[in-house]
Amino acid sequence: MKLKIRETIIQEEKLSYAKDGAKVPENAVDCAAGYNPFGTPPESVAVFKDLSPSAIFDYPHGDFLQEAILKYWSPFAKLTKKNLLLTDGSMPGLTLVNAAFSVPGAAALASAPQFSDYTSNAAFMNITYKPVYLKAEENYKFDADDLLAAIDGQLSLIYLDNPNNPTGQTIPAGDLRRILDKAREHNVCVLSDEAYGDFVEESASAISLLDEYENLIVLRTFSKGFGMAGLRAGYLLAGEELAQAINKLHNPYAVSQPSRMAAAASLSNPGFLQECRAAFGRGKAALKAATGNKMHMAHTFETCSICLLYHDDPEFDLEAALMERGILTYSGANFDGLGINSVRLRIPHENEWDRMIAAVKELNG
Amino acid sequence: MKLKIRETIIQEEKLSYAKDGAKVPENAVDCAAGYNPFGTPPESVAVFKDLSPSAIFDYPHGDFLQEAILKYWSPFAKLTKKNLLLTDGSMPGLTLVNAAFSVPGAAALASAPQFSDYTSNAAFMNITYKPVYLKAEENYKFDADDLLAAIDGQLSLIYLDNPNNPTGQTIPAGDLRRILDKAREHNVCVLSDEAYGDFVEESASAISLLDEYENLIVLRTFSKGFGMAGLRAGYLLAGEELAQAINKLHNPYAVSQPSRMAAAASLSNPGFLQECRAAFGRGKAALKAATGNKMHMAHTFETCSICLLYHDDPEFDLEAALMERGILTYSGANFDGLGINSVRLRIPHENEWDRMIAAVKELNG
Repeated sequence: MKLKIRETIIQEEKLSYAKDGAKVPENAVDCAAGYNPFGTPPESVAVFKDLSPSAIFDYPHGDFLQEAILKYWSPFAKLTKKNLLLTDGSMPGLTLVNAAFSVPGAAALASAPQFSDYTSNAAFMNITYKPVYLKAEENYKFDADDLLAAIDGQLSLIYLDNPNNPTGQTIPAGDLRRILDKAREHNVCVLSDEAYGDFVEESASAISLLDEYENLIVLRTFSKGFGMAGLRAGYLLAGEELAQAINKLHNPYAVSQPSRMAAAASLSNPGFLQECRAAFGRGKAALKAATGNKMHMAHTFETCSICLLYHDDPEFDLEAALMERGILTYSGANFDGLGINSVRLRIPHENEWDRMIAAVKELNG
Repeated sequence: MKLKIRETIIQEEKLSYAKDGAKVPENAVDCAAGYNPFGTPPESVAVFKDLSPSAIFDYPHGDFLQEAILKYWSPFAKLTKKNLLLTDGSMPGLTLVNAAFSVPGAAALASAPQFSDYTSNAAFMNITYKPVYLKAEENYKFDADDLLAAIDGQLSLIYLDNPNNPTGQTIPAGDLRRILDKAREHNVCVLSDEAYGDFVEESASAISLLDEYENLIVLRTFSKGFGMAGLRAGYLLAGEELAQAINKLHNPYAVSQPSRMAAAASLSNPGFLQECRAAFGRGKAALKAATGNKMHMAHTFETCSICLLYHDDPEFDLEAALMERGILTYSGANFDGLGINSVRLRIPHENEWDRMIAAVKELNG
């Protein structure tokens, strides 16, 4: 029997590091999953202690989270509820955008490597995926000119994760403007996935450009910086017309009520983010100091929780070598444009830095 | 500027009764929203009292909810984790199915009226929507022959909400088999949306047919019967090949960890459902007894929480008349195939039956 379903999802495999039911081996240091090892703001945890019955039995209700988000960003952009869609983490925001743009002939340009689940979803939705690769010889530093050269009228979308997953590097504000300008000339929409955006100053977010660019969509999540990956809360911001068009494809009940409450509470504690940024910065600096011979850290932003490590020997299975030393990471093989000699490493809690650094030092030789 | 987005979501309006920020007027009886007025099983509420930090900061993890669901249905179908996708309520299951089937020329047959958010999403995704209307002169009773006559090879999908929203009626098992058989002959997939399925005996679910029909998808949610609309937990079941194909478009982190825990806990208390079914049955019988002159109740299933009421005069604004009497309902105008002389009414808590019945009696004349 042959159902009339997309051929892509029957025939193509999915590239993703998010494995169902993956478990951290006993005694291993988890440097794989992108959660925040420093936990969650106490204000958010407190929400669960005394939940009202209506937070459970009634549909998600009230505008308090939307209002808290708008207030949080009010120093940087003039936004209203019509610019904002709540999403169950940032991944459903990505699939929503792909659903909106998946018309015949659609094509998405993306800097690679990047979050593979996005490009994989685009390809499954028959959006032709066009990667522009970061170059090993430039230590994987983002090159805006390479990307700009590939922008033309054939494109529908440009996907940028900023900070980039897996390198943890950011795109300079000037580069982002040049990309948005050229994209606008060709009626191309730029999707800025700021899943790791809480590890960068708020002023660096593309959110401050929403007033200026109708061709910009920004995605954020409470999973990483605010430490609530288990709660599935995120949001999409765009110009009113675009946001409201995308909203027609959206579930009006996105984000559970307890998660909305916890997310709103977290925004009252930006000091939590400051502390996490500082801690990741110290851990990353210490890790970088352990590289430089056979091991290298790709270009990165100092306070972002993730980075890309790679080994000189392209045949070297770095994920396996780190796992033998009790350090769980994601292999570069899960990303377009990288090989088994690289891993994405998320900085762990500082209690575990010594083990991480000892393992990397040993492989550095 | 003209982004390369679906024309449908720019140009067409959305028909939905789920209004953002809708509030229940003070002192009104809420018979509109589909939540369970009898609340939530105590086992589920207990989950939140002492949540472990990892339920918040780590990604949703463990297979305990999947296992609890498979165990719950094990008397009725042989299913494994490969048949099962967790979804954030049932609505994301619907949009996932539409994304999978939205290929050029796709068409969906649906019995109307039904859950408008499904057909609206299908239309936005360029799936041609073909309604087969329930007839007022048959008291809106589902007629399988009408639907069967409309099944042909042009279709990709048949959408059936069972129990039907807004009437609360069920499709007899024999009819469902005839529909599945004819659909299979034409390679058409049948989507059985059992959002209100917990108000019917488990043995009546299409889940028991999954072993037999590769062209069947069943959606369930914890929002209605188990009283957890605020938690956004649901699931999709289908044959392994179909489920795994759809899974490629899915978010691996669907359903928050606390919601997974609460949903799994609820399944240990099927007695809660029994009591709710009995209570809705009593309320619905009492309400029906208040109709029969100018007011009527469409064909319905006795223990389902919702029903369709209508007034003889097609110009009569029934939602407004009930609202004047303190009873909040959803107007039939929100559904394809109904007018302002009808409303969907969800049976309230028994404390509020007297007010509901008095209002309907008065309009019944």
